Amino acid sequence: MALTEKLAEFALGPVAGKDALQMARLSALDWAACGLAGREEPVARALLSLAEEEAGAQQASILGGGPRRPARMAALVNGTMSHALDYDDTHFAHIGHPSVAVFPAAMAVAEREGRSIEDMLQAALVGMEASVRFGVWLGRDHYQTGFHQTATSGAIGATVAACRLLGLTPERTVHALGLVATRASGLKSQFGTMGKPFNAGLAASNGVEAALLAQRGFISSPAALDGEQGFGPTHAGMEDDSAWDGLGCDWLFETVSHKFHACCHGLHAMLEAIATLRPGLDPSQIEAVSITTHPRWARVCNIPSPQTGLEAKFSYRLTAAMGLCGVSTASLANFSEETAADPALVTLRDKVMVDFDDSLLETQSRVQVVLAGGKLLEAAHDLNAPISLEARQQRLMAKAAALIGDNEASAIWDMLQGGGITALVAVLK
Amino acid sequence: MALTEKLAEFALGPVAGKDALQMARLSALDWAACGLAGREEPVARALLSLAEEEAGAQQASILGGGPRRPARMAALVNGTMSHALDYDDTHFAHIGHPSVAVFPAAMAVAEREGRSIEDMLQAALVGMEASVRFGVWLGRDHYQTGFHQTATSGAIGATVAACRLLGLTPERTVHALGLVATRASGLKSQFGTMGKPFNAGLAASNGVEAALLAQRGFISSPAALDGEQGFGPTHAGMEDDSAWDGLGCDWLFETVSHKFHACCHGLHAMLEAIATLRPGLDPSQIEAVSITTHPRWARVCNIPSPQTGLEAKFSYRLTAAMGLCGVSTASLANFSEETAADPALVTLRDKVMVDFDDSLLETQSRVQVVLAGGKLLEAAHDLNAPISLEARQQRLMAKAAALIGDNEASAIWDMLQGGGITALVAVLK
Repeated sequence: MALTEKLAEFALGPVAGKDALQMARLSALDWAACGLAGREEPVARALLSLAEEEAGAQQASILGGGPRRPARMAALVNGTMSHALDYDDTHFAHIGHPSVAVFPAAMAVAEREGRSIEDMLQAALVGMEASVRFGVWLGRDHYQTGFHQTATSGAIGATVAACRLLGLTPERTVHALGLVATRASGLKSQFGTMGKPFNAGLAASNGVEAALLAQRGFISSPAALDGEQGFGPTHAGMEDDSAWDGLGCDWLFETVSHKFHACCHGLHAMLEAIATLRPGLDPSQIEAVSITTHPRWARVCNIPSPQTGLEAKFSYRLTAAMGLCGVSTASLANFSEETAADPALVTLRDKVMVDFDDSLLETQSRVQVVLAGGKLLEAAHDLNAPISLEARQQRLMAKAAALIGDNEASAIWDMLQGGGITALVAVLK
Repeated sequence: MALTEKLAEFALGPVAGKDALQMARLSALDWAACGLAGREEPVARALLSLAEEEAGAQQASILGGGPRRPARMAALVNGTMSHALDYDDTHFAHIGHPSVAVFPAAMAVAEREGRSIEDMLQAALVGMEASVRFGVWLGRDHYQTGFHQTATSGAIGATVAACRLLGLTPERTVHALGLVATRASGLKSQFGTMGKPFNAGLAASNGVEAALLAQRGFISSPAALDGEQGFGPTHAGMEDDSAWDGLGCDWLFETVSHKFHACCHGLHAMLEAIATLRPGLDPSQIEAVSITTHPRWARVCNIPSPQTGLEAKFSYRLTAAMGLCGVSTASLANFSEETAADPALVTLRDKVMVDFDDSLLETQSRVQVVLAGGKLLEAAHDLNAPISLEARQQRLMAKAAALIGDNEASAIWDMLQGGGITALVAVLK
């Protein structure tokens, strides 16, 4: 069976997997919050300006409001915007960001078609699962060669979601997947530029385009993903067919990771450990703080006395002080020149020592706090530790609130529980 | 100097090269005729339908009429439509079709900007030259791996043309070229499907998109074409830097090939030879015909008794009869069931013998015709034989007339001599 056929069958099949669907719902909240918060980024402004120039049919909403746009354009803008802050979810097996490629496509087509939230979430879940597994199928060689899985596998996932929401037949879905094989693109050499978030927009938009053209009778090659000179063979794909084991039963998407701190990933384990010490802690009583992490991070995020917001994102000492003082590290706005210069934080920062220990994993950190009178507080954290759906929900709500405000975050979460897509897009303005 | 910088300098520089510009003018006629004739193809209908659904700003015309569309969409539709018949020009060193990727972008942006025909032709020439040289730079490995140079190099050429017509600065042009590196795509595994002509539309549309976003301040990576994990290194590019020798002085585009017969390329040398025998020939006097060609073609285009229009396109015997009887092989309409069943043609067809000789080149053919009374006529042709600009013009006018009618072809050619773009697009409806 050609890979297009296998994926088409999965794309249109029933979705049983309550936890996976709840995970998709949580990612939808996270995606929307990141997108709304990213709207003022320069790359988002460039895309919004192009959308304004082209105008066209009012089919699908842009995060943050304004006139609706053709579905293909809404997917391009929302995909780019939601990856602009690089604060969205990550799937490490896939080596990519599933939400920013798939949700913009699913949302745009669901709105164009007047579908329910539940339909949209199911389609997004199926699309993200397809993108994660396609990413695993392509493997590390694809990534190491220089392709950006978020963009390439993401386009496959976006196509799957769009076809499902359009209600295409299996045969038409096969042609959409064959078509997106010639359209999918995205290079890692864009990292550090606006091209990185744009790659997510490309994926979403390419998926919508392929599905809409297949709906119109477009004939492509069913062998275009895994056949001779198909996408995998031409793009350094390792073509690991074990990627498809359990497709339709097990959900790799369930192991997606969410970012809870708006700073370098190397700081996250420390911040998680500090959070456990925070209840009841009086920062004025702190005499000394000792942080221990893996040596890899020494040259990544150990700026001892940061001066700018950007430098603050790469500083163990300052972010430790923020965490101990209860200054939210989930809020982008808190990574500022003002924070870096805040006298109370600077005083505490200067009591923090950072040590490295190669017996720790890169995902682990230990924290010791000495209080006045000599009392010692200790905590440790490993980012690989499992987290329940309920705890994840609480944390994502807090993150969303920090990004877009309590009311907005709650309204989105409420709307994600069910109903028609129109009610959801109304709160995304 | 990064390749984006080298190309930006070329993109915006002066164009001296009268013959090259005349060649571009001839290709513009050929491109427009192929596009207008391709409008009823199923792939064109699918794209036109998507354009109708999306609607939007009326910036650029679609070949064959209807409302104007956003420049990016017009480029997508016109690029696809003009490659739908596979009857447009080819550059063998580039291994691609320069016109269908670049003219749709140049025309769309020229119309959006209200530029002159001369500006449009210069931009298209510069864009096509960039695409040809980028194709040479990528080399045969890129093509053999499975990438479709028409789409990939074509996107670079389309970007060059669009940036020139938008009047971008060198710095903004560098960012457009860096950006299109992450957007360019197109696989040969689409050959034989609607995906092949679509690849040309992608190239044109990607170029317009990259230029419009760069105009809005988009920041990309200047190293994204030839730097680490850039387009060349990630896409099996051979990176033959001799491709850039003489850039701005010599025009590789001058060696572009035009198709003069609406059938398999393997028949063209024979048809050219027959054309030299045709003046004064009375087909009723023909007793026997002998064709000799390279053995490669034996299994490509030697259907002895074709029944359908498609089979007729792959038949030495029938197309020889058509040529000897003066039935135009430049006209698509003549490749029909009726032609294949025409009694006079079938009678003559049955007098044709086909032989193969591996001392001939693939581009060569010999023809012998024995007349009643025993008189022998002989001719030979090599497709590599040079053809003057004047002769080429005559032939392209005849081809265009066969595709879209005398009046339409003449009107387009007249408009291509100068003036504003509006007058040209008015005759392309």
